[in-house]
Amino acid sequence: MEQYTNAWLAYPKKAKGSAAFWDRVTVVTNATDPVPVLATAVSELLCYEKESFSATLEVFERKLAKELPEEASLSELIEATEQKEGLVLLVLDALSKKYGEGYRIVSNEHVLFVVAGCGKGALYGSFDLIRMDATEQKVAGLDKTVIPDNPLRMLNHWDNLDGSIERGYSGESFFFAKDEILLTKRTRAYARLCASVGINATVINNVNVKQAATYLITPRYLKQLKNMAEIFAEYGISLFLSLNFAAPMELSNLPVSDPLDADVSAWWKEKMEEVYREIPELGGFLVKADSEGRPGPHTYGRTQAEGANMLAEAVKPYGGIIIWRCFVYNCTQDWRDKTTDRAKAGYAYFKPLDGQFAENVVLQIKNGPMDFQVREPVSPLLGGLLHTNQMLEVQAAQEYTGQQRHFCYLLPMWKEVLAFHTYCTKEKDTVADLISGRTFPQKYSGMAAVANTGADVNWTGHDFAQLNWYGFGRLSFDMSLSPEEIAREWIKMTVSKKKPVVDALTEMALSSWRTYENYTSPLGIGWMVNPNHHYGPNVDGYEYDRWGTYHRADCHGIGVDRTEAGTGYSAQYRDENRLRYNDRETCPEELLLFFHRVNYDYVLKSGKTLLQHIYDTHFEGAQMAKEYLETILSLKEELPPELYARILPRFQHQAEHAAEWRDRINTYFYRMSGTEDEKGRTIY
Amino acid sequence: MEQYTNAWLAYPKKAKGSAAFWDRVTVVTNATDPVPVLATAVSELLCYEKESFSATLEVFERKLAKELPEEASLSELIEATEQKEGLVLLVLDALSKKYGEGYRIVSNEHVLFVVAGCGKGALYGSFDLIRMDATEQKVAGLDKTVIPDNPLRMLNHWDNLDGSIERGYSGESFFFAKDEILLTKRTRAYARLCASVGINATVINNVNVKQAATYLITPRYLKQLKNMAEIFAEYGISLFLSLNFAAPMELSNLPVSDPLDADVSAWWKEKMEEVYREIPELGGFLVKADSEGRPGPHTYGRTQAEGANMLAEAVKPYGGIIIWRCFVYNCTQDWRDKTTDRAKAGYAYFKPLDGQFAENVVLQIKNGPMDFQVREPVSPLLGGLLHTNQMLEVQAAQEYTGQQRHFCYLLPMWKEVLAFHTYCTKEKDTVADLISGRTFPQKYSGMAAVANTGADVNWTGHDFAQLNWYGFGRLSFDMSLSPEEIAREWIKMTVSKKKPVVDALTEMALSSWRTYENYTSPLGIGWMVNPNHHYGPNVDGYEYDRWGTYHRADCHGIGVDRTEAGTGYSAQYRDENRLRYNDRETCPEELLLFFHRVNYDYVLKSGKTLLQHIYDTHFEGAQMAKEYLETILSLKEELPPELYARILPRFQHQAEHAAEWRDRINTYFYRMSGTEDEKGRTIY
Repeated sequence: MEQYTNAWLAYPKKAKGSAAFWDRVTVVTNATDPVPVLATAVSELLCYEKESFSATLEVFERKLAKELPEEASLSELIEATEQKEGLVLLVLDALSKKYGEGYRIVSNEHVLFVVAGCGKGALYGSFDLIRMDATEQKVAGLDKTVIPDNPLRMLNHWDNLDGSIERGYSGESFFFAKDEILLTKRTRAYARLCASVGINATVINNVNVKQAATYLITPRYLKQLKNMAEIFAEYGISLFLSLNFAAPMELSNLPVSDPLDADVSAWWKEKMEEVYREIPELGGFLVKADSEGRPGPHTYGRTQAEGANMLAEAVKPYGGIIIWRCFVYNCTQDWRDKTTDRAKAGYAYFKPLDGQFAENVVLQIKNGPMDFQVREPVSPLLGGLLHTNQMLEVQAAQEYTGQQRHFCYLLPMWKEVLAFHTYCTKEKDTVADLISGRTFPQKYSGMAAVANTGADVNWTGHDFAQLNWYGFGRLSFDMSLSPEEIAREWIKMTVSKKKPVVDALTEMALSSWRTYENYTSPLGIGWMVNPNHHYGPNVDGYEYDRWGTYHRADCHGIGVDRTEAGTGYSAQYRDENRLRYNDRETCPEELLLFFHRVNYDYVLKSGKTLLQHIYDTHFEGAQMAKEYLETILSLKEELPPELYARILPRFQHQAEHAAEWRDRINTYFYRMSGTEDEKGRTIY
Repeated sequence: MEQYTNAWLAYPKKAKGSAAFWDRVTVVTNATDPVPVLATAVSELLCYEKESFSATLEVFERKLAKELPEEASLSELIEATEQKEGLVLLVLDALSKKYGEGYRIVSNEHVLFVVAGCGKGALYGSFDLIRMDATEQKVAGLDKTVIPDNPLRMLNHWDNLDGSIERGYSGESFFFAKDEILLTKRTRAYARLCASVGINATVINNVNVKQAATYLITPRYLKQLKNMAEIFAEYGISLFLSLNFAAPMELSNLPVSDPLDADVSAWWKEKMEEVYREIPELGGFLVKADSEGRPGPHTYGRTQAEGANMLAEAVKPYGGIIIWRCFVYNCTQDWRDKTTDRAKAGYAYFKPLDGQFAENVVLQIKNGPMDFQVREPVSPLLGGLLHTNQMLEVQAAQEYTGQQRHFCYLLPMWKEVLAFHTYCTKEKDTVADLISGRTFPQKYSGMAAVANTGADVNWTGHDFAQLNWYGFGRLSFDMSLSPEEIAREWIKMTVSKKKPVVDALTEMALSSWRTYENYTSPLGIGWMVNPNHHYGPNVDGYEYDRWGTYHRADCHGIGVDRTEAGTGYSAQYRDENRLRYNDRETCPEELLLFFHRVNYDYVLKSGKTLLQHIYDTHFEGAQMAKEYLETILSLKEELPPELYARILPRFQHQAEHAAEWRDRINTYFYRMSGTEDEKGRTIY
């Protein structure tokens, strides 16, 4: 039996008294949107009204009575629509340029207008209205306009066709099982949840495209994909697929998949004609090429640009785009080789190609140069590329941040990344500026998150991990939102509206990333995890492996010199950052061991030695995890019982596992350094 | 297609000239052996003659013409059998007490007698004759009597019914596939190879009995097992099965498997009646109880003896025996707990039960107290138990000794174990004395080896790993044999008879265990391997785990104090050994870190510091592995081409992997100690 919650869209009953505007909705439109997203907006309003107030909203359709100026006042809106009360969804083609996928909400005590230029704008506006109402914000007397910051707000699912999910921590896939595509009620429930936070694109299959997944672009699957794409389209979401670069060889008899081979490019053109004939809604494709064993253009001595552009040309006639991942590096490094630095690889491969990519190619760049560690510097490709469409990739799936058994709210991390100054221009030089297209005129750009969802009843394994899904959508839509605002919204909609509960959980959320960092690998060094599954402490787990991930700890100190005196990685940044990172006195301390090799007795700004800092943060982090558990236990009566029953064992595990992390890391450094903890606490 | 070599029973053609005796064989017998093992002996002689000389041996049957004294001279044998030439197999019931499963070979230039008291004796004598001829030993003018030292000479296969093999390094199972029993030509080929070296018992399924394997004792499998048991019986081999102690619950609806529960013991009695009715040849059962998650009597607060005896009673009417493993320990230890010592567990559980086991129970004791590490002290249970049937368990499967990708000839290790003085009696106190029944009157005793075979064409992955199978059989039959003799036999029969080749490979074999030890974990500390699969270096791989396997290295030193001042493990030995191990000056140096915690600057008898010893042995070990490869390359023209093609990549891998081991271990201790190699060699 299929079971799932509606997460933050589960509307508890509330008093009719709070239900201003909620007895009638009038749709006024001349929009010619072929997909009825506007109808979805209306049905979401109806749903909210029905579930919250147990009453029936009446829906009316009206024509515009009178021409309207672009910047209409509330009274002009009332006059033009002849609506003085209730909700009015006003969607006019003429406003599509002004609002794009955004909307305006304007209201007095009697009437509330959601004004948009297309159905998606009306849908996002409607969800905003629902959110405001559900979080007990005042909706009368408003006039706000919200235009999404990023053109692309995308999830990347690493779901395999057999139903497994690579780096999935919340059950099996709800897109695939036994090499078949699943179309269930959950498909729509998923789309609703995504749309409610502004997500407008999704890649449903793993970037590692193998076996059956290679066949997604064949008749075997196109019909079902078409059905899925139509459901998604109702929620304003474009379906994308991950592609296998070697498909011409695997699906056909071509001897190569060389992007400059005429037969290969002809094959792709024909293939895309076939795919788009069946699914014109398809947004495009995501490609992981020449990475971790995946095929790609390097096999044929071609550049990443040559590979991407060949595919881009094939999808161009249909308005498709190619999203090309920059996660290319040597994954068969010898740990004895101290000259190669994996952190340098992305920039080294892609910077020389800046300007060579087709206009419908977007490079997707992980936030850091390594791989989603709890702390990394921002990738130098962001701000390095000046003439290339680019989007930021973050990971909501908590691969290295507790795998949805630990609570780790990632919005503070993402927010820091977005605020990072690249110094690539005099102004508008932050990552947020770059990926939103404010810095350079990019046709396609935005944010992608590796999704953290699965078929678990609560979607994300840990209920609180929903925050990273919810928060990704909200933040990618409006990058000015704070992690605190986002957390409070989600908590109020999903857990409790009571202030002490909201305050306690918000505080926990906001500290959780730092807490996780405190009891895991210190000061940006990363990688002290068990190999393969990446869960749990293992200081040397990646130290002698082939992945380019080394801490090089010895009895004197730890860290990798990535300055210009070392591997030279810092030189990939603009001067301001380069110089800041080069000097260990100006290098941000949370990245100290990423950029510098430092002795254990080095004194930090806190006055503590590096070693004592490691000990202290680990004791503190584990203590915090213990306190989280105590908080949860103290809130038992305040939390929904099912949610409490699900999260309690996870917080218990986190407290215990944080102590294990603390002891493993501290013991490692104690044994290595031979230096006692100043405070005499137990280290083994 | 099924493919396999005949290993050491592949007889190359040779000149007729060497074929004294090989033109006629006469069988003279009054034996009433119900299974025609004697016929097998004859057919093996025929096979050897045919394949070696391309001629046909004539077979005659004769009755004894005249009574014979037990100690007959050659001329009395000639007179009584009226045979003056050729081979004579003389098998008389009256000799069964004198020879047991042994035989006498007595010959002049014209006639050779194999004298035995049963068909198995004749079979082993025939294989000895074949071996002597094939290895170019003189067989005329002999008079030797060989009685097997050990009553039980057994293989333990860890084969699962799905076809996988736990700790299997040579392909899938040839006993099982897809939950079915395989009966193929290979079944017989396997039995021949075992019988040729004196193996007389085999357990075909994994000691971890789960899923389908639990059903082996049900009608679903009994028919096929009966067929297999009959084939084995032709070669003098008893079939054994591993049992699931929880079978009453899994196969029936019993709520418990408590050995003192009347319903449980009644269930087992009925079950055994059913099994033995179908397969009267069945030797009995092997049980891993209360170990690593397997069910057992401890679940019900019963002792290991109560568990074993209940099963023993059920099989007793059929002459069956229960082999009960002593591998019981706490496998959920906290690495932070320094008081618990896994090494103590076996003795702690079983010593108090000495004398309580039924007469048809045999305790099977691993050679060391841990788990088949490259170097361990001998288990204190050997010599600790005075009133209990016991057998020694060694591991031919190279789980911790290179997994049949590295060449590691284990006979020198086993020989050392057998020669170990336990001081449990004034004389006949070695492990060899104990397990052969020379020390105490044991009804059942002997040696078992975890098998290293699989469906690979050469049976053992690495052709040279056959040596450990071959050698186990030979040594368990005749514990006076030297590893060198055994290696030379196998090399001559399998690889080459040319002296330089035999010498070179024998030398390599005899050094290979020490070589492997040199480049892996030092001085008895063990466990520096990757978790789970146990292959390749990982110094901290088991350091922070739950398995009780710690080296506790820090910047000062390494080792576990298991003396009476430490965990007290040494007190489980008799005084002579206890005192020797307690003192680090008298403790055998190869076990130094097993028994003592020692600083890196501790000076060994060689005059080297511990640290320098670690560096030196690792450089030496890796150098030896490189030289093995060079030797193999130099022998290319002398080796059978298929064998050369199979072993070359393994020796190449070993050389490379030994260097990886060297560098990982040396780097770990260099980083930890901060002390340079005296010889200035490269450490990372």
